[in-house]
Amino acid sequence: MSPSPDHIGLYPGTFDTPTNGHLNLIRRAARLFGRLYVAVANNTSKAPLLSVKERVTLLRKITKDLPNVTVTSFKGLTIDYARKIGARAIVRGLRAVSDFEYELQQALLNQAMAPEIETIYLATTTENSFLSSSMVREIMRLGGDISQFVPREVEALLRKKFRLRK
Amino acid sequence: MSPSPDHIGLYPGTFDTPTNGHLNLIRRAARLFGRLYVAVANNTSKAPLLSVKERVTLLRKITKDLPNVTVTSFKGLTIDYARKIGARAIVRGLRAVSDFEYELQQALLNQAMAPEIETIYLATTTENSFLSSSMVREIMRLGGDISQFVPREVEALLRKKFRLRK
Amino acid sequence: MSPSPDHIGLYPGTFDTPTNGHLNLIRRAARLFGRLYVAVANNTSKAPLLSVKERVTLLRKITKDLPNVTVTSFKGLTIDYARKIGARAIVRGLRAVSDFEYELQQALLNQAMAPEIETIYLATTTENSFLSSSMVREIMRLGGDISQFVPREVEALLRKKFRLRK
Amino acid sequence: MSPSPDHIGLYPGTFDTPTNGHLNLIRRAARLFGRLYVAVANNTSKAPLLSVKERVTLLRKITKDLPNVTVTSFKGLTIDYARKIGARAIVRGLRAVSDFEYELQQALLNQAMAPEIETIYLATTTENSFLSSSMVREIMRLGGDISQFVPREVEALLRKKFRLRK
Amino acid sequence: MSPSPDHIGLYPGTFDTPTNGHLNLIRRAARLFGRLYVAVANNTSKAPLLSVKERVTLLRKITKDLPNVTVTSFKGLTIDYARKIGARAIVRGLRAVSDFEYELQQALLNQAMAPEIETIYLATTTENSFLSSSMVREIMRLGGDISQFVPREVEALLRKKFRLRK
Amino acid sequence: MSPSPDHIGLYPGTFDTPTNGHLNLIRRAARLFGRLYVAVANNTSKAPLLSVKERVTLLRKITKDLPNVTVTSFKGLTIDYARKIGARAIVRGLRAVSDFEYELQQALLNQAMAPEIETIYLATTTENSFLSSSMVREIMRLGGDISQFVPREVEALLRKKFRLRK
Repeated sequence: MSPSPDHIGLYPGTFDTPTNGHLNLIRRAARLFGRLYVAVANNTSKAPLLSVKERVTLLRKITKDLPNVTVTSFKGLTIDYARKIGARAIVRGLRAVSDFEYELQQALLNQAMAPEIETIYLATTTENSFLSSSMVREIMRLGGDISQFVPREVEALLRKKFRLRK
Repeated sequence: MSPSPDHIGLYPGTFDTPTNGHLNLIRRAARLFGRLYVAVANNTSKAPLLSVKERVTLLRKITKDLPNVTVTSFKGLTIDYARKIGARAIVRGLRAVSDFEYELQQALLNQAMAPEIETIYLATTTENSFLSSSMVREIMRLGGDISQFVPREVEALLRKKFRLRK
Repeated sequence: MSPSPDHIGLYPGTFDTPTNGHLNLIRRAARLFGRLYVAVANNTSKAPLLSVKERVTLLRKITKDLPNVTVTSFKGLTIDYARKIGARAIVRGLRAVSDFEYELQQALLNQAMAPEIETIYLATTTENSFLSSSMVREIMRLGGDISQFVPREVEALLRKKFRLRK
Repeated sequence: MSPSPDHIGLYPGTFDTPTNGHLNLIRRAARLFGRLYVAVANNTSKAPLLSVKERVTLLRKITKDLPNVTVTSFKGLTIDYARKIGARAIVRGLRAVSDFEYELQQALLNQAMAPEIETIYLATTTENSFLSSSMVREIMRLGGDISQFVPREVEALLRKKFRLRK
Repeated sequence: MSPSPDHIGLYPGTFDTPTNGHLNLIRRAARLFGRLYVAVANNTSKAPLLSVKERVTLLRKITKDLPNVTVTSFKGLTIDYARKIGARAIVRGLRAVSDFEYELQQALLNQAMAPEIETIYLATTTENSFLSSSMVREIMRLGGDISQFVPREVEALLRKKFRLRK
Repeated sequence: MSPSPDHIGLYPGTFDTPTNGHLNLIRRAARLFGRLYVAVANNTSKAPLLSVKERVTLLRKITKDLPNVTVTSFKGLTIDYARKIGARAIVRGLRAVSDFEYELQQALLNQAMAPEIETIYLATTTENSFLSSSMVREIMRLGGDISQFVPREVEALLRKKFRLRK
């Protein structure tokens, strides 16, 4: 019942910071493809909390038990990167209605630009339905405890970085 | 870049009547799986326009050029049928926000009952974004022309059935 | 600043029962067209509270001070009736998001079938934003007072009809 | 930190059937009021699965450890019943956006009819976010297992009733 | 029918600027609790129009006829402040669907971090349903008249501050 | 069937950059009014991609075949500009639910400030339903091809400006 190794999927994102919701989605998407690329979008428009390199390193650590997952980063349009790695489908998570509208716009735009690449959505699990990177960053900023929202490796790095800032 | 033949997907639905939107989704989903089951839910709770047998026949006609698509029907829970045919994922189309909320509820319910089966969503294409079986039935009821909304084979049968009624 | 008399709009609906929200929308739409048709859709699929004739009579009563409003009824597709009366635009009210999705589907369907006819939306005023015919019917069914939700003439007829039923 | 005994809340609903989501909401609402009425709306418009009496009995069983909860039933408008029992607030659960729109319409209507009674909303917990009475009824109809979605007492009764039907 | 004095609620917000909608919500929430804290979130991430001190002063002025309302400010997580003042519930207003989604995420996050504290929502009244602090600030910026959207005391201060800027 | 020349509409917007969606809406709105003003809101709060002058020039070029369209720019509140030009209605496009909520808030605010001016909405056509100025700017920023999303004249200018930047 395994997908063939050349059935390739792409899960792009900002991952600033990776959360338990991202990790759950990666685990589930990895079962649908022969190979799943998890790719950090390296778009310099916003001031990130973590560098692209830090995010790639963290994603590699938390997915090291998933042999068919490859963590990378990319610049430019997602569909161009999907073409480059031979991905048939882009994977995205859906939490809420506001997610859905933005995602639908993106999917239709991608259809217009690259009709051969499919966008597929996975619903978040209930326990992660309220989780987002921005909420985790906000809790950190306000001095709250994020240990139940992010993988252990992510918390360790964030704890270290934030202590340095103070 | 093909999925292996035992990578099985299930696209369940009522398909009363099949529309161009359904056909588009079947074509796209067929490329993501080694085999795609298109399965008519045989739930006797509503008075259908077309019999389950008619719907299966129509879906077979309009997918006859897709060698890895199998059209069937089933009774009972979708997850039970997915388990029976060895499907790893249930495929659903998303048009609008109201779709999304219902679909999300179903996906979370299915996660609770069958965590090993994934639900994946494909966005409709823009030209089918307003299409639904119920809208097609409503246009027919009001005497309108449905030829641009359904496959030719579907229109032929509907035209024949409706003439008989009158 | 008046629209020319042959600039025709169509406000179709079920109007079962007409509410203050309908009346407000008619008043506002009447200012945008040389002539506004308010047309009761005579579709026999549901068991109505008021007959088509009663609804037309009520709508005529409550719009009798609006000289450029014509109240009618029609069967069949709205776009066919719009063509018949020479309407350039169909007018619809929008209250809430669920309205909007249904209305958007209808507008896109109408675009596909009759691209020369425009659908335009007016937002309800805040004081009518929660009003719908079905809520008014529900309040009546449960014995509540509807006098602040419908025009006086509508309340009079409903009061009379309901007393007869009991 | 306890509310005074004459601070009364009303949680009205159809409760056909009561679910774990209802029970969770009752527990949480009971902490906000001196007394919480859980009241089955006895509106004969739909064919229910369980009789009003059965629903009241079940709700009493599953709330028997909550001393400040009173289970009743009522006919007519919710605001009239709220006034009769001296409730200051009506409590409602919110799961999803479609819930929210309907609930908001109801709240605004209630404000118009009874401005002295407040409607307050509690969000469902994540694990119950997909649960509804109609979904539980649908799973039962299709032969699925509902034990993780309803309290034990509810399942026992439903099991018994459904066996009789077959 | 009064709540006991130690039944404490917390209405947190940015209140930059306080509007008629905020004031309406405070009045209604004050009736549900023995004591209601209205607390300005002192989070320095955005450049505010009014200082925290100005906002606290304004909120005190416009609530001076409500004896059980206490206006304060706080830093850090809302749930930490709720615990500190012994609040059983956090009160939030809901206007629209986009509000609702954000609020639901916050409520679920708060449930995960502080399950003993409830979040309750009140719907805005229809006449305030379109009001937000950011819309008021935008109207001011464009030279419009805000007198019907904010309490008299708020307008007076804003008028004074804005004249100084010019 | 033409509107009289003094039946004036106003289509305000940022138009940074004009898209095929804007052009489609202008064409359709121009048929509903004797004269349609397309007006660039000159609000200096954001750093625009194109100057107001460039946007006005582009809009004039792409509407030069529409004799009853006048392209202008304005500062301040939209309703004040509508009054100044004698417009009876403000025209806005609706794509998605998130659009709708924002637009509804604006319409209700405008009703409160200028009840004599109507806001009317046109739904986007399906092929433009995913298009927005910000998405076009994002695609440009990431090096993608925007030729299918904007009028030819707009692409020419953008290509020229962006080349200069590099």
